[in-house]
Amino acid sequence: MTSRSVGVCYYPEHWPEGVWPEDVRRMAEAGLRKVRIGEFVWSRCEPAPGRYDWGWLDRAIGVLADAGLEVVLGTPTATPPKWLVDRMPDMVALDGAGRPRRFGSRRHYCFSHEGYRAECRRIVEAMAGRYGRDPRITAWQTDNEYGCHDTAVSYSPAARHAFQEWCARRYRSPDALNRAWGNVFWSMEVRDFDEVELPNLTVTEPNPAHVLAFRRFSSDQVASFNREQTEVLRKRTDADLIHNYMGRETGFDHWDVGADLDVASWDSYPIGFLSDRLDLPAEHKRLYLRQGDPDMQAFHHDLYRSVGSAKDGRSPSDGRWWIMEQQPGPVNWAPHNPAPLPGMARLWAHEAFAHGAESVLYFRWRQAPFAQEQQHAGLLRPDSVAAPGLAEAAEVAGEVADEAPGTAPGQVALVFDYPSAWAWETQPQGADFEYLHLCLTFYRAARKLGLDLDVIPAGTADLSPWPLVLIPGLATVPDALRGAIAAHGARVLAGPRANAKTPEMAIPLPLPPDLPGLDCTVALVESLPPSADMPLAGGGALTRWREALEGGADVVEALRDGRPAAMAARTEGGGRLTYLGGWPDDAAALRIVRREAEAAGLAVRDLPEGVRTRRTPTHRVWLNYAAEARDTPAGRLPPAGVIREPITGSARRASDPEDDA
Amino acid sequence: MTSRSVGVCYYPEHWPEGVWPEDVRRMAEAGLRKVRIGEFVWSRCEPAPGRYDWGWLDRAIGVLADAGLEVVLGTPTATPPKWLVDRMPDMVALDGAGRPRRFGSRRHYCFSHEGYRAECRRIVEAMAGRYGRDPRITAWQTDNEYGCHDTAVSYSPAARHAFQEWCARRYRSPDALNRAWGNVFWSMEVRDFDEVELPNLTVTEPNPAHVLAFRRFSSDQVASFNREQTEVLRKRTDADLIHNYMGRETGFDHWDVGADLDVASWDSYPIGFLSDRLDLPAEHKRLYLRQGDPDMQAFHHDLYRSVGSAKDGRSPSDGRWWIMEQQPGPVNWAPHNPAPLPGMARLWAHEAFAHGAESVLYFRWRQAPFAQEQQHAGLLRPDSVAAPGLAEAAEVAGEVADEAPGTAPGQVALVFDYPSAWAWETQPQGADFEYLHLCLTFYRAARKLGLDLDVIPAGTADLSPWPLVLIPGLATVPDALRGAIAAHGARVLAGPRANAKTPEMAIPLPLPPDLPGLDCTVALVESLPPSADMPLAGGGALTRWREALEGGADVVEALRDGRPAAMAARTEGGGRLTYLGGWPDDAAALRIVRREAEAAGLAVRDLPEGVRTRRTPTHRVWLNYAAEARDTPAGRLPPAGVIREPITGSARRASDPEDDA
Amino acid sequence: MTSRSVGVCYYPEHWPEGVWPEDVRRMAEAGLRKVRIGEFVWSRCEPAPGRYDWGWLDRAIGVLADAGLEVVLGTPTATPPKWLVDRMPDMVALDGAGRPRRFGSRRHYCFSHEGYRAECRRIVEAMAGRYGRDPRITAWQTDNEYGCHDTAVSYSPAARHAFQEWCARRYRSPDALNRAWGNVFWSMEVRDFDEVELPNLTVTEPNPAHVLAFRRFSSDQVASFNREQTEVLRKRTDADLIHNYMGRETGFDHWDVGADLDVASWDSYPIGFLSDRLDLPAEHKRLYLRQGDPDMQAFHHDLYRSVGSAKDGRSPSDGRWWIMEQQPGPVNWAPHNPAPLPGMARLWAHEAFAHGAESVLYFRWRQAPFAQEQQHAGLLRPDSVAAPGLAEAAEVAGEVADEAPGTAPGQVALVFDYPSAWAWETQPQGADFEYLHLCLTFYRAARKLGLDLDVIPAGTADLSPWPLVLIPGLATVPDALRGAIAAHGARVLAGPRANAKTPEMAIPLPLPPDLPGLDCTVALVESLPPSADMPLAGGGALTRWREALEGGADVVEALRDGRPAAMAARTEGGGRLTYLGGWPDDAAALRIVRREAEAAGLAVRDLPEGVRTRRTPTHRVWLNYAAEARDTPAGRLPPAGVIREPITGSARRASDPEDDA
Repeated sequence: MTSRSVGVCYYPEHWPEGVWPEDVRRMAEAGLRKVRIGEFVWSRCEPAPGRYDWGWLDRAIGVLADAGLEVVLGTPTATPPKWLVDRMPDMVALDGAGRPRRFGSRRHYCFSHEGYRAECRRIVEAMAGRYGRDPRITAWQTDNEYGCHDTAVSYSPAARHAFQEWCARRYRSPDALNRAWGNVFWSMEVRDFDEVELPNLTVTEPNPAHVLAFRRFSSDQVASFNREQTEVLRKRTDADLIHNYMGRETGFDHWDVGADLDVASWDSYPIGFLSDRLDLPAEHKRLYLRQGDPDMQAFHHDLYRSVGSAKDGRSPSDGRWWIMEQQPGPVNWAPHNPAPLPGMARLWAHEAFAHGAESVLYFRWRQAPFAQEQQHAGLLRPDSVAAPGLAEAAEVAGEVADEAPGTAPGQVALVFDYPSAWAWETQPQGADFEYLHLCLTFYRAARKLGLDLDVIPAGTADLSPWPLVLIPGLATVPDALRGAIAAHGARVLAGPRANAKTPEMAIPLPLPPDLPGLDCTVALVESLPPSADMPLAGGGALTRWREALEGGADVVEALRDGRPAAMAARTEGGGRLTYLGGWPDDAAALRIVRREAEAAGLAVRDLPEGVRTRRTPTHRVWLNYAAEARDTPAGRLPPAGVIREPITGSARRASDPEDDA
Repeated sequence: MTSRSVGVCYYPEHWPEGVWPEDVRRMAEAGLRKVRIGEFVWSRCEPAPGRYDWGWLDRAIGVLADAGLEVVLGTPTATPPKWLVDRMPDMVALDGAGRPRRFGSRRHYCFSHEGYRAECRRIVEAMAGRYGRDPRITAWQTDNEYGCHDTAVSYSPAARHAFQEWCARRYRSPDALNRAWGNVFWSMEVRDFDEVELPNLTVTEPNPAHVLAFRRFSSDQVASFNREQTEVLRKRTDADLIHNYMGRETGFDHWDVGADLDVASWDSYPIGFLSDRLDLPAEHKRLYLRQGDPDMQAFHHDLYRSVGSAKDGRSPSDGRWWIMEQQPGPVNWAPHNPAPLPGMARLWAHEAFAHGAESVLYFRWRQAPFAQEQQHAGLLRPDSVAAPGLAEAAEVAGEVADEAPGTAPGQVALVFDYPSAWAWETQPQGADFEYLHLCLTFYRAARKLGLDLDVIPAGTADLSPWPLVLIPGLATVPDALRGAIAAHGARVLAGPRANAKTPEMAIPLPLPPDLPGLDCTVALVESLPPSADMPLAGGGALTRWREALEGGADVVEALRDGRPAAMAARTEGGGRLTYLGGWPDDAAALRIVRREAEAAGLAVRDLPEGVRTRRTPTHRVWLNYAAEARDTPAGRLPPAGVIREPITGSARRASDPEDDA
Repeated sequence: MTSRSVGVCYYPEHWPEGVWPEDVRRMAEAGLRKVRIGEFVWSRCEPAPGRYDWGWLDRAIGVLADAGLEVVLGTPTATPPKWLVDRMPDMVALDGAGRPRRFGSRRHYCFSHEGYRAECRRIVEAMAGRYGRDPRITAWQTDNEYGCHDTAVSYSPAARHAFQEWCARRYRSPDALNRAWGNVFWSMEVRDFDEVELPNLTVTEPNPAHVLAFRRFSSDQVASFNREQTEVLRKRTDADLIHNYMGRETGFDHWDVGADLDVASWDSYPIGFLSDRLDLPAEHKRLYLRQGDPDMQAFHHDLYRSVGSAKDGRSPSDGRWWIMEQQPGPVNWAPHNPAPLPGMARLWAHEAFAHGAESVLYFRWRQAPFAQEQQHAGLLRPDSVAAPGLAEAAEVAGEVADEAPGTAPGQVALVFDYPSAWAWETQPQGADFEYLHLCLTFYRAARKLGLDLDVIPAGTADLSPWPLVLIPGLATVPDALRGAIAAHGARVLAGPRANAKTPEMAIPLPLPPDLPGLDCTVALVESLPPSADMPLAGGGALTRWREALEGGADVVEALRDGRPAAMAARTEGGGRLTYLGGWPDDAAALRIVRREAEAAGLAVRDLPEGVRTRRTPTHRVWLNYAAEARDTPAGRLPPAGVIREPITGSARRASDPEDDA
């Protein structure tokens, strides 16, 4: 592997060819190394059915390569052209209300449409046939942001047919399906697989088992759609295959898609996510208006580092990953779109590298003055003058140019699981029970204590690398993880709602959590409106969700009225397993995670508000998300400031936890 | 009639037969007497078209009856099986946006579909033919929760056709319809009944007369659908016929359906209703989070006691009614689903008995671990361990086992009227003008004063049983009631918005309220946003709605600026009729109802916050809905506490109003 | 031209003929002069296809004219009858979700349906043939409230076909369209015009250029629909042709429609607009609950005075205009509908006359007791008793009877532009960026300073009449206006977001604002959530929207942190052009407009809260919108009070700006 690199997304088809050389010269001058192109070019590469036009693309690749830039080439399947949609109008997805999701923007296809899949194989074959062995293309991106704009699901006839086949494969017989879903309830039984409907437009909620099965199916369709492209590509290229996942997108299982790819990447829009896609208090949003949530990006970094390990059997802490699109300025798609604080475009990149990113590509080179994203900032303004992001990108490029990618292994593992996201979307039971938010609550607590995390999949069979393992809201604990918990010699903190459902979305017997060695039963659950937090005796409160716990295990957290809130027991492996029966507020989460971390022998810090830190093999990186300067052990950080402190060179401070590199 | 009884809803089809005997033994042991079964079993009783399977149901009935339990058997028409829907796909309702309300949950039928009606007659005939004369079946429930999930209305072609026929019967000629609806307005005139559309998808609001007619029609369809079942059943059984109405459901006229049934019953989910279906202040919802609104249940008890009198010409205060489904723990369907305070499952039952319930059945025996309601508590947990509700149900069962059903006649009558609910939904004129909320405002005031109420229909022709009659928001005052008001010798409090519309949803002439003997005219109405309450000189304020009153009657309430807010006059019968021109806030409602009650010679109390009381023929029952202990004349009540004070045995207290049993 | 007149809207078809004479007598008695009739009578004039019935209309006109009343006759095309819709069911519009907007209210037609257009020409021909030369008809109204209820747009097949033809005319070739819209983005290119879709139901947002083109097309369809009627009418009548525009309606370009009409008129519902259609703070809405926003009506008056100048090349300050419908009491269509303060029905009319209205017609004569608007007040109650509005209408009628219409030319011009409204609806970039609201912010500031305004179209080529010109949010500055700015000898205040888009909804190069002589570039824009106002050094703040300004022009406003917020330069004409890079809050707007006005040599006042003033050729009119009495230089004004101070007779006061009549 080469060194860390910075790059940019570029759309040669948007600009006159005469502009390309100067663009490319400036990219190189800024120290950029990678350029992604091509992911929306179908109408230009195949302007009419069967009539290909590669000339302009050949020339664009040439200009880029001549300047020493590495090309990442996208397959254009996210934007089928009008002539193709007109040839097979039923290829578009239908939304839950039964309406077609029509041509005119992007992602207007149903993953289950066989005709469209054939067209995708054809165009990818054509593109790979031409460029697969071209050394100037160092990586391929499949499609673009699977699932974005709620496109993982479709309620089309094609989807219904494919779902029926999927059910037939999974359940073997209609009776087995009826039993698995509990269809006896409300006379929902089917006599044949072709009686299976899609779970939309029902009078009241559909069977949650039906919905979860449909979500599993929909995820599988994304993975198999992607696999059809990777199969075509693998035959024709040895370059890295990548997909750019959209942040905050849980419509399909990213590890499943990742298993067919060499590198994971994600599209990071910190300010857009904070404004549009996080259910956090208004005051928090105000404080981080121009910085983004201080933990949202890191969480995704750690997640995609894990997704990037799916193919090769690497450790989740050691996967290959990139940022494929990094916000450089205001975006166009959130309710409000403020500009980042000066320095944030650099900070975000440094944070990604600290978490192990190989490359960070800014989106996009020049702000397009036309079409949907014309208000989305680039590194250049539409008039080609440098926008604020360019200097920051160049600064980062210089700073990391000679550094090898990598990060330190996490001290804390957080189990994240897409089917759990589907399960709690299907049946939140409390209007604000949102799985990613729950995971972020625990992730944030550990990060505020200065700990390094890995995000790991539910299928993990060995927890020994992590002194502390967090398992919030994991709907089903697989056998392998169950064994790993039992065998763990250090701390595990599970709950709330852990192991609360079978894989078929039923309540398991024995009742949850049914964790190894822990005599603790959830006797009753309740969801709570905002005004009804339940204070904990030790400080903080349970919010949104509370479980009544019974059993003989040790009570380690209690409500102020004495009822148990968390119970714990020794594991077979000599560790200690704690089950928390509720959603902790931030204060409770911090207190509880601190206790667990300390019991696990981890040194924790009290980081100032907005400051975060991450170790790499060579550095401790300090980041300031606050809009004011903050003091850290490594010195004073201005707003958006970054300090990369060499670990070996750091004088040990008496007041500070030890860095065990 | 036998004594009060407690029961439970049971789903033998959900469990292995081997579990039934132990379930039934525990039911009997808990003192339960009635068990409802069968209301969703179509796919099990007729697994394929024309192929009946009664064996399992025979055996289930046998097990129940062998343990001495009485069986209430439901007709399964709320959940037509898939094969039936596939045979007649147009049997599903269409929603207001024109979308099918599809198979996959329940109530997926249009009340106007003749083909589905024929299928319902067939399955009910089959079931009644087999079990109609079976003495083990002591009652039949028709269908399940008519109207729930907004299913009373449908915009299907079947509904349109039936509506046109209904219009032809009601109006006789298109011209008459045009005149009745005022169709000259906006050139909406029709030339033939087959030009009559359903009132959906119009550019701006449809003609309110059109909407009201459609709502009347939709209600009639529910009643005739139910009647088709009762006609089949009456020929084959002498058992009581019952329907379980859903609380807070005003999609059809319950008295109309009740006229064909022996007993009314309703499904009471106090915490779900408070969370999801009452527009009350957040602080009120916080105070009663785990108890439910203190007046919502009682209002429904009094309502269904009246509905239960519809068939036999009984007094509305003396109808037969049950709770068919009583919440025993957290439900699954509200935005948030907290657990009840310990004791509430008992309190709710005692309140029902105090209001005259014959039976209270908890929903359901064992929490189902599968399908839509898996997060809905039962008396048992999914693992068959007793949930908190079981002990409370058993306690109530013991307490009421030897008591005869009955309640004391109300001192105050509240007129409630489904067409008024439709009228004000059709034309609220103020966004928050909600009829049931208005009625509950007056009901609550009387209850807080310790008064016993009856809810009576608008067709009541004799008000003499009630010293005080409340008539809020009755859109049209029928002639019989008009006569009764005139003849009344005690107090009547009407308004706001009483007699404000003709039966065809027009403003009547003379202008409202046009009440007998009262020289008072509503010169102008206005609706008010939340910030614009209008204070009354006597205390409290008008909120949401205010009318300008003119005329020669006595001004008995005035705004702070002197304008009249209520006017009154002597009735022919020697009583006094007051018209209130606005929606009183809680303080004003309490003050005004107190004055009227005292003027009517009723003794009122100042009940502590959350305490309510009701008399039966033998007891005064005290209930504490507050989350803290409260003092009452009968002693100190803990949260969820109930005191049943024998009336004859109670020492009269000087400080307390007299109980006139 | 004759004198100012007051009138009323009347619906003879709603009442028995026997009532007409007394109605008309009372109208005349009240001093009313104009009566509008007929705009919804299609089903009565043509009760069956081809069967006309004019008799009743002949008689109604006769009764009115016999009493000396002038008749304004409406064409009935806003309400096609049922038989017509049944003959061509595809004539209805489809909404953005693809649902038909069906018969049953009004405006249920698609402007692009050729069949319906033919029917409209036919009925207008029939009506004009009969009444065109009838001297009793002094004016004709075409249709009714074009665009109301979101009806300017339709997504029907007819609209799609017409849009494709419109595109073919505008762009000439598919390639030109692709280039104009930037369709290379996301492979949205079309190969033929029949591939052009309507911009609805896309997966994520459609191309904003596509949307803006569709909005231009939709506006053009309204204008050509109206023109078809005026072409029919011009051949058959010499009476004034008028349309009654709905207030707060920006679905089409009113100047374009106005170019075919003699007089503009608008429908003014101050309280409904405040409640329903203005995004203003709750406290403001509370203060003006029964008065309406103090600037909303005046803004529309000035707007329609300009629209009324479109045909004849008059000055925008001198157009002919009426109020066709004036709210006289509570309306029926807002979320809450409070009654006006006593006096407001008179104040609103006087304000209209002060701004130059020829006539003010109240809507409506008698409150209809039936159909959709039965809760809408009239001058009479449904029982024919005078409602409060009648006396106020009569009072105004008396006050203005001998006065010539007219107003004073504005001191300040505000450029208003429908395409800018479409542009910012298409791409707000900040959720609360609303063009009319932005314009009203500047309009309000000038009005609070006692200044008189003209609203002028973006095509204005000579700004010399106005010492101060305000150009907020004008998406594209046309060449003529650009020249006028350069040549202007006084003050111009432009921005934010002025000249920010090309006519094809792209970002122009050079970057905005690119105004003549002003070295100022918007380097970056950002939208701000409510909590993130940015204080200005001089007081007040930028809110919702902020631009980073660069360039060599003078910095005349700065943020508190010193960054420029407004820049200015001398114009070629010797004036001064200022560009403001943000949305000023009310305090900043008042301060900045005051400075500009004073610099322009205009005398400003500090009007008390709620007081407004306007000059006519003969009077200075003082209006009190406050609910409390207010002192003015002309004396103390009670709530809703009006003082009309003769200008020549007014003693000059030392403390007061000079009135230069």
